[in-house]
Amino acid sequence: MKRDVIIAVDAMGGDHGPKVAVEGAVAALEDANISKIILVGRESEIRPALRGLSYDEGRIGVVHAEEVIGVEEAPTTAIKAKKDSSIVVGLRLVKDGHAAAFVSAGSTGAVLAGATTIVGRIRGIKRPALGVILPSAAGYFFLVDAGANVDAKPEYLLQFAQMGSVYMEAIMDVASPRVGLINVGAEQEKGNALTKEAYGLLEGGGLNFVGNVEGREIPLGTVDVAVCDAFVGNIILKYSEGFAKGLMSMLKEELMADGMSKIGALLSKKAYGRMRKRFDYTEVGGAPFIGLKGLVVKAHGSSNAKTIKNAVKQCSKFITTDVVGKIEEKIGEGRDEDGI
Amino acid sequence: MKRDVIIAVDAMGGDHGPKVAVEGAVAALEDANISKIILVGRESEIRPALRGLSYDEGRIGVVHAEEVIGVEEAPTTAIKAKKDSSIVVGLRLVKDGHAAAFVSAGSTGAVLAGATTIVGRIRGIKRPALGVILPSAAGYFFLVDAGANVDAKPEYLLQFAQMGSVYMEAIMDVASPRVGLINVGAEQEKGNALTKEAYGLLEGGGLNFVGNVEGREIPLGTVDVAVCDAFVGNIILKYSEGFAKGLMSMLKEELMADGMSKIGALLSKKAYGRMRKRFDYTEVGGAPFIGLKGLVVKAHGSSNAKTIKNAVKQCSKFITTDVVGKIEEKIGEGRDEDGI
Repeated sequence: MKRDVIIAVDAMGGDHGPKVAVEGAVAALEDANISKIILVGRESEIRPALRGLSYDEGRIGVVHAEEVIGVEEAPTTAIKAKKDSSIVVGLRLVKDGHAAAFVSAGSTGAVLAGATTIVGRIRGIKRPALGVILPSAAGYFFLVDAGANVDAKPEYLLQFAQMGSVYMEAIMDVASPRVGLINVGAEQEKGNALTKEAYGLLEGGGLNFVGNVEGREIPLGTVDVAVCDAFVGNIILKYSEGFAKGLMSMLKEELMADGMSKIGALLSKKAYGRMRKRFDYTEVGGAPFIGLKGLVVKAHGSSNAKTIKNAVKQCSKFITTDVVGKIEEKIGEGRDEDGI
Repeated sequence: MKRDVIIAVDAMGGDHGPKVAVEGAVAALEDANISKIILVGRESEIRPALRGLSYDEGRIGVVHAEEVIGVEEAPTTAIKAKKDSSIVVGLRLVKDGHAAAFVSAGSTGAVLAGATTIVGRIRGIKRPALGVILPSAAGYFFLVDAGANVDAKPEYLLQFAQMGSVYMEAIMDVASPRVGLINVGAEQEKGNALTKEAYGLLEGGGLNFVGNVEGREIPLGTVDVAVCDAFVGNIILKYSEGFAKGLMSMLKEELMADGMSKIGALLSKKAYGRMRKRFDYTEVGGAPFIGLKGLVVKAHGSSNAKTIKNAVKQCSKFITTDVVGKIEEKIGEGRDEDGI
């Protein structure tokens, strides 16, 4: 049975407010696979944002939620206290089957805490993780966990690897994805307490495990799935962002420092444009929380309309390839009675 | 009393063997502050490497050591078993006061294990750490710990911060260095178990502590000292290396992808040359193990002669500014009877 592609979007999340989220969501309707997008948040702010945009009214719905959870709020407390927040209401739509996915650019912690309690984990999955697709010199790789479990256990890392593997196979069409354990040395005995123990688990985990991967190798594209705890994953994710920015600003400085280089830079404009596009976070879209019984996607907090659009469109692929069902099937311990 | 600047160099360390180490060490004699360089290793390999080089014979010494510790050997075992290795003999020269510093491009683990047992920690310092100077968009910053303690405790991080602060002040002439704790969020309550506890210690540590620093900020130069455990530090250090390489190879690809960009790239040649230089690891030299009762500097395993030269010359500054004495004075708990 082909499922309806209905995607709920948090209209209140992100640094740029409802206007950007609504505009991005509406733009995603260009994907003909999407049956409907449900905007979740304050109707009094969503309606004005919709005005002036042209779209098929039958494919846009609005579900009112009065409250907003800020990024500065303690996630678990906020989720419990603000039952009428856009995040809680949006997640409920997924839980109750009214939407196949929820996209939010709001607080990562609140989306995660809410998703875990409201949507729930796949039976047998110890911890959901945040997975991110990052560019490498050879293409792309999946970094997991990039944001959920800052204090992880070896058995979590094993499941992150397994889920990442399913993801790369189902969504990115990579056959037998190469899985690497992010570590401080290539040899098995290297590492901290966590990675030393995780190594053996990964070896026996039914994966195409290629061993430890050092920091130097990650951006070169030697693995398809790079596994780590969320502390390390967050640092890598954000460091890449800052480093690319810093490097490009240094390059700009050097290109402007002498006349000949300056002229050269003007001529190479197209190449720099393509470079920017490769590193454009607005192109990548969103990062899925994997291990949940429904699809929850986190978009970057500083998302613009294009990022939101891409995150929503990405969900359409997640839904049609049934990544949740595949993780459940391959790693979960059978379906719950109330499982989807 | 002005100390003699005598520096011992491991002639057997590094991927490129004695020829490169000897050539680099001899080249460092251009620094007039250096009284003498002692080459440590197999005399039968050092002598031939010296032949053909022109240098002041009074400023080069050779101390024979028959054994070599490989990077694949278990550090502690190797240090105990190979008493006549270049690393152990070199470290003994420092311990016994025959040299003020030891530079090695050999096994990081063996140099660290040997330095801790042979040279010894400054009294009151819980763990020595590896500090590395890295380029940022704003200049340079000191990353500590970049390689010694992969499983750290909060109180170690405090001392890393204090030692890093002394280092940046003494060696890099930074007044009141800004210290940041590498973390997954800006707010105090963010982090894993380690950083959450370390935050309070850093606040009360008599530092110019500017709080948590997210991955994104590190390469932008918002802090002078970036503190973390050696697992995170190693990943950042090596990831930078790989990322810069990956980014430059992507840029090259894009520049070659159309005719106009190609011509532009030719014209901008000088700018690219300056860029390469900014990221050239051979320029940076070595990384000091800080917290020891003597000066021990680790050069990159893939060091060429220029890197070794720069690492040795850097030692000369470490010795004349007495960074070891300053750390001892500010953080140590008074001098041992056998302290230097």
